[in-house]
Amino acid sequence: MIGTSIAMAASRAGDDVRGWDLDPDVLPRAAARAGFEVASDLPDAVQGADISFVCAPGSVIPGLSIESLEASDGGVVTDVGSVKARVVDAVRSGASTERFRRFVGGHPMAGSERSGPDTASGSLLDGSAWVLTPVTETAPAAVERVRTWVEKIGGRPVMMDPSEHDRGVALVSHLPQLVSTALMGLAAREQEQGVPETLMLAAGGFRDLTRLAASNPVLWADILRSNRGELGLAIDAFVEDLLSLRCHLEDEDAEVLAEVLGVATKARLAMAVRPKVRAGVAILQVPVPDRPGALADLTTALSDGGVNIEDLQIVHSPEGGRGTVHLMVAGADAEAAAEAIGRHGLDSTRIA
Amino acid sequence: MIGTSIAMAASRAGDDVRGWDLDPDVLPRAAARAGFEVASDLPDAVQGADISFVCAPGSVIPGLSIESLEASDGGVVTDVGSVKARVVDAVRSGASTERFRRFVGGHPMAGSERSGPDTASGSLLDGSAWVLTPVTETAPAAVERVRTWVEKIGGRPVMMDPSEHDRGVALVSHLPQLVSTALMGLAAREQEQGVPETLMLAAGGFRDLTRLAASNPVLWADILRSNRGELGLAIDAFVEDLLSLRCHLEDEDAEVLAEVLGVATKARLAMAVRPKVRAGVAILQVPVPDRPGALADLTTALSDGGVNIEDLQIVHSPEGGRGTVHLMVAGADAEAAAEAIGRHGLDSTRIA
Repeated sequence: MIGTSIAMAASRAGDDVRGWDLDPDVLPRAAARAGFEVASDLPDAVQGADISFVCAPGSVIPGLSIESLEASDGGVVTDVGSVKARVVDAVRSGASTERFRRFVGGHPMAGSERSGPDTASGSLLDGSAWVLTPVTETAPAAVERVRTWVEKIGGRPVMMDPSEHDRGVALVSHLPQLVSTALMGLAAREQEQGVPETLMLAAGGFRDLTRLAASNPVLWADILRSNRGELGLAIDAFVEDLLSLRCHLEDEDAEVLAEVLGVATKARLAMAVRPKVRAGVAILQVPVPDRPGALADLTTALSDGGVNIEDLQIVHSPEGGRGTVHLMVAGADAEAAAEAIGRHGLDSTRIA
Repeated sequence: MIGTSIAMAASRAGDDVRGWDLDPDVLPRAAARAGFEVASDLPDAVQGADISFVCAPGSVIPGLSIESLEASDGGVVTDVGSVKARVVDAVRSGASTERFRRFVGGHPMAGSERSGPDTASGSLLDGSAWVLTPVTETAPAAVERVRTWVEKIGGRPVMMDPSEHDRGVALVSHLPQLVSTALMGLAAREQEQGVPETLMLAAGGFRDLTRLAASNPVLWADILRSNRGELGLAIDAFVEDLLSLRCHLEDEDAEVLAEVLGVATKARLAMAVRPKVRAGVAILQVPVPDRPGALADLTTALSDGGVNIEDLQIVHSPEGGRGTVHLMVAGADAEAAAEAIGRHGLDSTRIA
C-alpha cells in the first residue's frame, strides 16, 4: 500500500517511476494501479534511480536496502519502516562505509491498517509528517534530495535521530494503542465477570479513549513488538506517572492534583492549530436523529454561520434512532455557533 | 446547572416545580431560567413534593438530603451526586430508618464542565443514563416513582448498587480521565525536555486519547478525589494489565499478544449500536480544506448517498489551512460512501 501510494504520488508530481516487488502476484497489480514501469529484478529497478524507496516488511528492509545501495550506482536509498534505529544499524553493518552515506532512514506517518496495492492512494501522503533519520555518516546531499522530494509531493519532512524517532512513536502512537486496549479490556472484564451495567455508564470520553482498541490486533501486535525496547520504557514511565497521580489523590491539599492535571490541560490546548483555538475551546452538545443527513443539516448550519468546526464527535444512543453530537469550536465562536444552530431549528447546550 | 436543567425538564413534562438554593444569588437566576416557584427555605421547597432532587456540592448532599426527608412529609428524596456509596451511607446514618426508606441515591450521567443556572438546558438529560442506587432498605414504591419520572423526561434509568456504581464510574470515566492526562503529560515532558519534534509525530489516535486532558483541571481534581477509593483500585488493576501486556511484548510467540489485543477489539466493536456496525467498520480518510463549509460539503455528499456517519474525526494540519477527516461508516457502507464522496468531487482513501 505504501509503496504503490508513493509511486502514485511520484507519477502525479511528474517523476518517472520503475518498480519491483518480492511477490510476483503483487507486482503487476501495483504497476497497473500506479502506472509504473515493471523492472525485471531489484537491480533493474534501482539502477540509475535518483531515489529508491524500500517498502517491505520490517524484517527484510535492511537486506533489500543494502542490495539497493549496491545496485543503484550513486542514487539515494530510503526506506519506510515504522521503527528506525534497528534498520539504520543493520544497514550500517551490512553496507560499505561509502555506500551507507547514501542511505536515509525514513518513516512516512500515514497510518493505515490496510495493505496491498489495491488500497493505495496518491493522496495518502498529502500533508503527512514524513520522518527522515540521517546519521553523522549520511551525506548531506542525500538527505537534501529526499527532503526536497517529500516536500514536492506534499508531505512534511521532519528530521530526527533514529532512536529519538523510535522513542517518539512509542510515546505518541504505540503506548496510546496499548493503553486503549488495556482500558477497554479492563472495563469489558468488569462488565462480563462483575457488574453487567458497567458499559452503560460509558460516555463520550470512554469512547474516545477506546476507539484505537478496535484496530486490527494482528497488525498491531507486530508493530508493538517491533518497537518493544522503547515501548517497554514508555510503559514504565507511564506507570510511574499514573502511580504518582494515584498518590496525589490522597494529598491533604486538593490543589496539588489540580496543578498536575493543569499542566496536561495546557499542553493539550497548545496542540491546537490556530491561535483562536489555542486560547480555549467550547463544546456544544446537540441532539440529532441517528439517520443519514442529520449531520449534514448541522454542519450546514455552522457553515452558514461562518463557524469553523475544530472537532466533532458522534455519540449514538445505545437504543439507536437518536444520538448526540459534541461539537468543538473556538471559544470565541461559541455564541455564533449556538445562534447558527438555533436558526436551523436545532437545540444546543454548551457543556464546556 | 443540573438542578436548573432538571427543573426545566420537569416543567416541560408538565410538572409543578418549586425550588430553593443555598446561594441567594443563584436562586432567582435559576427560577427565572426554569420558570419555577421560589420557596422561602428548604422545608418550604420540599413540603408536599412527590420527588425532591438534592443538587449541590458532594460535601453538603447528605445533610440536605436528611433535612429534605424530615420536611417532605412522605415524599421521595433523591440526589445527583457523582459518587454514591458515601452519600447513601451518610444518609442512612443520619436519617431515621423510616425516613431512609424514602431516599433513592441517583446520578444522572449528563456530563458537563460548566456550572450555574445560566448554562442549564431542558434537553441536557435527553437520552442520558440516570443511575439509581436503591439499597435493601429502600421502599420499592420510592424507587418506582423516581424511575418512572426519569423515563417521563426522556432519561434512561439504570439500577445499580451504590458501590457497583462507584466502581463502574471509576473504570469508564475517572480512570480514562487520569490516563488521558498522564499520556499528554508524558509526551509533553519528552517534547519539552527531550525531543522537540515529539508531538509532530502525533496522529489521530493520540488526539483521541488526550482529548479529555483538555478538561477543567480544578473540577476534575475534585471529582477524582471524591472517588479516590475505587479509583485507586482501578489504577492498580489497570497498571497490572499494562505490565502484563508489557510481558507479552517479549513472548516468543507473536500470536499471544495478538490474542490479548483481539479480546479488546471484540469488546470495542460490540459497543457499537447497530448490527451493521457491530459487524465491523470502515474508516475513510478524506482531505478537506480547513475552512467553514468544508465539512458541510462532505456530510452532504454522504447524506445524498444515503450513508449514515458512525463517527467522524477532524485532523487539522499543524500549518493550518487544510486538514483531514477520518470518517467511520459501517463496513457494508464503505463502497457507497466512497462513491458518494467521489461524486461530490472529493477524494477518499480507505485506511481501515
